Amino acid sequence: MSDFLSDHGVLVAVVCALLAVVYGVVTTRQLLALSPGNEVMQRLSAAIQEGAQAYLRRQYTTIGIVGVVLFVALIPLQDIYVAVGFAIGGLASAAAGFIGMNVSVRSNARVAEAARGGISPALAVAFRGGAVTGMLVVGLALLGVAGYYGILVNLFDRTSQEAVYALVGLGFGGSLISVFARLGGGIFTKGADVGADIVGKIEAGIPEDDPRNPAVIADNVGDNVGDCAGMAADLFETYAVTAVAVMLLGVLTFQDEAVVLFPLVMGAVSIVASIIGAFFVRTSSGNVERALYQGTLVAGVISALLFIPITNWMMSDLGGDAPSWTDIYFCSLIGLGVTGALFVITDYYTSTRFAPVKSTAKASETGHATNIIQGLAQGLQATAAPAIVIVLAIWGASELAGIYGIAVAVMAQLSLCGLIVALDAFGPITDNAGGIAEMANMPEDVRNVTDPLDAVGNTTKAVTKGYAIGSAALAALVLFAAFKIELEEKGDLVVQFVLDDPHVLMGLLIGGMMVCLFAALSMEAVGRAGAAVVEEVRRQFREKPGIMDGTEEPEYGQCVDIVTKAAQREMIIPSLIPIVVTVIVGVLSVTMLGGMLIGVIVVGLFFAVMMTSGGGAWDNAKKLIEDGAHGGKGSDAHAASVTGDTVGDPFKDTAGPAINPMIKVANIVALLIIPLIT
Amino acid sequence: MSDFLSDHGVLVAVVCALLAVVYGVVTTRQLLALSPGNEVMQRLSAAIQEGAQAYLRRQYTTIGIVGVVLFVALIPLQDIYVAVGFAIGGLASAAAGFIGMNVSVRSNARVAEAARGGISPALAVAFRGGAVTGMLVVGLALLGVAGYYGILVNLFDRTSQEAVYALVGLGFGGSLISVFARLGGGIFTKGADVGADIVGKIEAGIPEDDPRNPAVIADNVGDNVGDCAGMAADLFETYAVTAVAVMLLGVLTFQDEAVVLFPLVMGAVSIVASIIGAFFVRTSSGNVERALYQGTLVAGVISALLFIPITNWMMSDLGGDAPSWTDIYFCSLIGLGVTGALFVITDYYTSTRFAPVKSTAKASETGHATNIIQGLAQGLQATAAPAIVIVLAIWGASELAGIYGIAVAVMAQLSLCGLIVALDAFGPITDNAGGIAEMANMPEDVRNVTDPLDAVGNTTKAVTKGYAIGSAALAALVLFAAFKIELEEKGDLVVQFVLDDPHVLMGLLIGGMMVCLFAALSMEAVGRAGAAVVEEVRRQFREKPGIMDGTEEPEYGQCVDIVTKAAQREMIIPSLIPIVVTVIVGVLSVTMLGGMLIGVIVVGLFFAVMMTSGGGAWDNAKKLIEDGAHGGKGSDAHAASVTGDTVGDPFKDTAGPAINPMIKVANIVALLIIPLIT
Repeated sequence: MSDFLSDHGVLVAVVCALLAVVYGVVTTRQLLALSPGNEVMQRLSAAIQEGAQAYLRRQYTTIGIVGVVLFVALIPLQDIYVAVGFAIGGLASAAAGFIGMNVSVRSNARVAEAARGGISPALAVAFRGGAVTGMLVVGLALLGVAGYYGILVNLFDRTSQEAVYALVGLGFGGSLISVFARLGGGIFTKGADVGADIVGKIEAGIPEDDPRNPAVIADNVGDNVGDCAGMAADLFETYAVTAVAVMLLGVLTFQDEAVVLFPLVMGAVSIVASIIGAFFVRTSSGNVERALYQGTLVAGVISALLFIPITNWMMSDLGGDAPSWTDIYFCSLIGLGVTGALFVITDYYTSTRFAPVKSTAKASETGHATNIIQGLAQGLQATAAPAIVIVLAIWGASELAGIYGIAVAVMAQLSLCGLIVALDAFGPITDNAGGIAEMANMPEDVRNVTDPLDAVGNTTKAVTKGYAIGSAALAALVLFAAFKIELEEKGDLVVQFVLDDPHVLMGLLIGGMMVCLFAALSMEAVGRAGAAVVEEVRRQFREKPGIMDGTEEPEYGQCVDIVTKAAQREMIIPSLIPIVVTVIVGVLSVTMLGGMLIGVIVVGLFFAVMMTSGGGAWDNAKKLIEDGAHGGKGSDAHAASVTGDTVGDPFKDTAGPAINPMIKVANIVALLIIPLIT
Repeated sequence: MSDFLSDHGVLVAVVCALLAVVYGVVTTRQLLALSPGNEVMQRLSAAIQEGAQAYLRRQYTTIGIVGVVLFVALIPLQDIYVAVGFAIGGLASAAAGFIGMNVSVRSNARVAEAARGGISPALAVAFRGGAVTGMLVVGLALLGVAGYYGILVNLFDRTSQEAVYALVGLGFGGSLISVFARLGGGIFTKGADVGADIVGKIEAGIPEDDPRNPAVIADNVGDNVGDCAGMAADLFETYAVTAVAVMLLGVLTFQDEAVVLFPLVMGAVSIVASIIGAFFVRTSSGNVERALYQGTLVAGVISALLFIPITNWMMSDLGGDAPSWTDIYFCSLIGLGVTGALFVITDYYTSTRFAPVKSTAKASETGHATNIIQGLAQGLQATAAPAIVIVLAIWGASELAGIYGIAVAVMAQLSLCGLIVALDAFGPITDNAGGIAEMANMPEDVRNVTDPLDAVGNTTKAVTKGYAIGSAALAALVLFAAFKIELEEKGDLVVQFVLDDPHVLMGLLIGGMMVCLFAALSMEAVGRAGAAVVEEVRRQFREKPGIMDGTEEPEYGQCVDIVTKAAQREMIIPSLIPIVVTVIVGVLSVTMLGGMLIGVIVVGLFFAVMMTSGGGAWDNAKKLIEDGAHGGKGSDAHAASVTGDTVGDPFKDTAGPAINPMIKVANIVALLIIPLIT
């Protein structure tokens, strides 16, 4: 078996990856066979589909232009294999996001329809809609990595090391898509959301998801392009980049074929575990959160069990002073443990059940300002526990097996990302379902099913963001380690990044500056996109007075178009920061570049967690008040909590999560420009 | 002359330091000779004096307890000389804060009285009131450092190196006072401010500084204990610690007596320059900002000129591959340049004249949430330029003269801190003067003088905070360099803090975590202190209905007492973070400690700048609206801007500035525990 895996590890990975794709295709067919509801619902769903597709087409066109430039630049800088890898990574990531989102926007009306039958069937449809995206993400990522590696080694006679190096290009392709998709999607979704809320709820006094609001379709489109396509691209990238980084570290450290394939096989068996886990997402009691976490737990336990034999078979004979297979296995358990710990911590800081959200809700009683202060304080505080978890993980894994141990831990953490993406993509589907139910005037009991599903979606979205950030930070550290080793191997340059070297200190500060600038620009972008929506909606209300009494139809497409254009325009400059600054700093000084890479990771981690946890807490504090606490809907406390929720929007859905891919883009660009800077 | 300075540098420093003290004493006598106004004004001023003294007595008692414990701990850990240095540093810092604040609270009524004669005499009184604190800070700091050094070398026959090492204890004494004073003062001032605003402005609908508000005296006391005593302790510490760190680096690097004394002589001649500069703070045109900056510029130019001969005399014959005296002189120019650049940048981000504040004011039109989003985005963006300035300074100075060059730059930057503290302490005096004018029903034209002075005070407060943070970050880097060298010298331990060492990475994350936790706890503390004030004011309004129609006198003392107790209670835990975590991490792993120290500096710099600049922008955006922009007072935009201002309060006056001393406490504790960890 040991020899089999060493010889056929690529095959195992490709087969399991195809299994995930097949799961996606079969589930999609099952979903499409369900009733999409009545004519109104279909029309609304179609409008969302159209808007989402129009947005993604435009986004991919913009990215395509940048991508072609980079593809051409990579050929002389690296070689054709790296450039082709880059293209594969970009295309596979785009495909996962595009297909997944297309399924999501078709599932929304079907969830609303299924909700007529209660929470159990609605959950089943919504979760499976999200699972398509999740499985496509891991499936296509693993297929790309394992498949391209297999082709290079077997058909083009590249050595393992050369092949893995070409895979760095593949990771970069995924990274490029992810930073644009996260940022563009984030600006779109929150620009539409903030704009729709300001004119709709505050100025016109109409409820959320009211069909008279011309921005309502844009808002629903935004949920999909942000949380579904954006998150998919983000985790595709983290997954692919981590797999590649672990392969790279393995081949550079141990010079052993089996070691190179180990992360691929880990990913492969976890796909099987995830598919099994997906079948455990079911509820008879109506406890949706429990159903979702139950599936994740089952997948985690199965993965933990399957890792035992594969680690034993593949990592037993490394020889020398290499770590034992049990040490490596414990590292993978650490990775799974980190996933669990980050879940619990983020849940604590963002769920309505615990003190942080309750304290933010209570602070709303004394007004807008105290709500904001408390939310910010909670966001800051929420960084402490994840930081400690990551510190402990680094400590444990590095004691067991050095930097490679950290790499294995991250790979284990990411192996579950198919299910995690499903939990996240579940959110926009239920959110959309609620919107469609509202707009199509469906009976009250449908909303009574979609509302609690939506609330759970808010928590799972926050929790998966905590997971994404934690894994991004660790993955970036692994990339940094690979960068350091590659400098010696490829660049023939032995550099010590020493903390008292002024260049390293300058780099650390520049890295921190990149994070702050990136966050500032993306938050301002949301403000501008939102303002454009506000003006357009005001124009429509002014020119078509019949909208309010239902005699005239609002032009939904106009709003979608405006926010699409705004997102495209606004995402370019911030997205280029991690590419351009990294190249400039690298050319100036390699030691400064080393400091910069770590500066981005360290400062980025704290801002990202503060923003996503703070934002989640504000969101759910509002929910708590809407459910009747502190005066309920319409009270002053409610108004204050709406302010907090609106502030939290660009925090948790634009700037915060976009920091993840930015961290990794900087680190992977550094790997790729080694020939330029040494 | 060269020999004279090498032999008598200590004497020169002590004489100049005494000159600063004499300036303080003479100016105080001049101020006290002025009319303190009518009986009502005197009564109000006395109430503020009483509250401020009661607060400081209590604060110093609390710190005293911690201080005695640390004093005793230092004797076995280090030696009696370090412990005595610690006591001297603590007492001198406390004295500077206590005397300075006593002069401030006596100047307030005198400024209000002088304002009857127009802006020119009012400025003269207010600035001189602030200058007393400023000159005492540099005077006592330099006296302590130079005097104790002289005593140790001449009377106790310690070598230069032993004497400088005892001075590290002196720096730590100042640090201890500063972190407590900054945090306690910050919690006091903003607890009182937020509480007074919520009940007064929002609930009871009475204007700011209305004598019927029972929290109004506490609010005025807060201005003094926060911005005057707190800032004084902060810059005393930065000044003393930097002088000591530069001496330490000098003696460790060059083994030359003159080098040890160089920073002392730099400080000495800058005191002369600052006293001359202070005479240039005058206006006939009424342009207060210009008058203040004019004085600073004159002091800067004179310092730059005086640095030429002293650098030439003292630093010419270092021999070997040491930097030339011109290189070192250019480093001091870099330090002065950093001061200027940070002034201009912070002014840009926080003054009503420029785009950032204007955009925040405009964003208030669309509500509370957009005001907050824009303010946060501006705060984040405001970190970029200072980071670049600091990066360039590190680059320039280290190219010229290595780490020692950075040290000289920071010393030059701090040499002006007497004047800078004066600019900051000017703020609470004018703020109080306006309050007294309001409460004593002084004529309209008095407020027309104090209001623009107060507005300038807001900008100078923001600008001096930018300066304090920039210098703190650079000073901490110098401390870190000294820590590294001391590890080898004293601990006989050669450690490389390498970025790819897992322990260093863990340390960086722990350092970042300390900053976030510290900021979170201090913001929450303000919330709790404010809530306690709200309850007390509500109780008084309820039990004494006559307060509102003026037939009953509010119990001002109760509010002062409550917020005093709250500040004492709340400051302990956060203040202990940089001491306790540093010791624990140091004991666990020296490399982790190295990473932690840099993590605190890097992450701390960005959060501190974001918080102080964002807070300043919100404050002035409100001012802009109150001056008539975007609908003026009473508009919805005004309400939104009040929210921003309230959120900015704990940002810019509690958490943000308290990060400075926290950064340095961590680094100086690391220096002191070397015997424990090696």
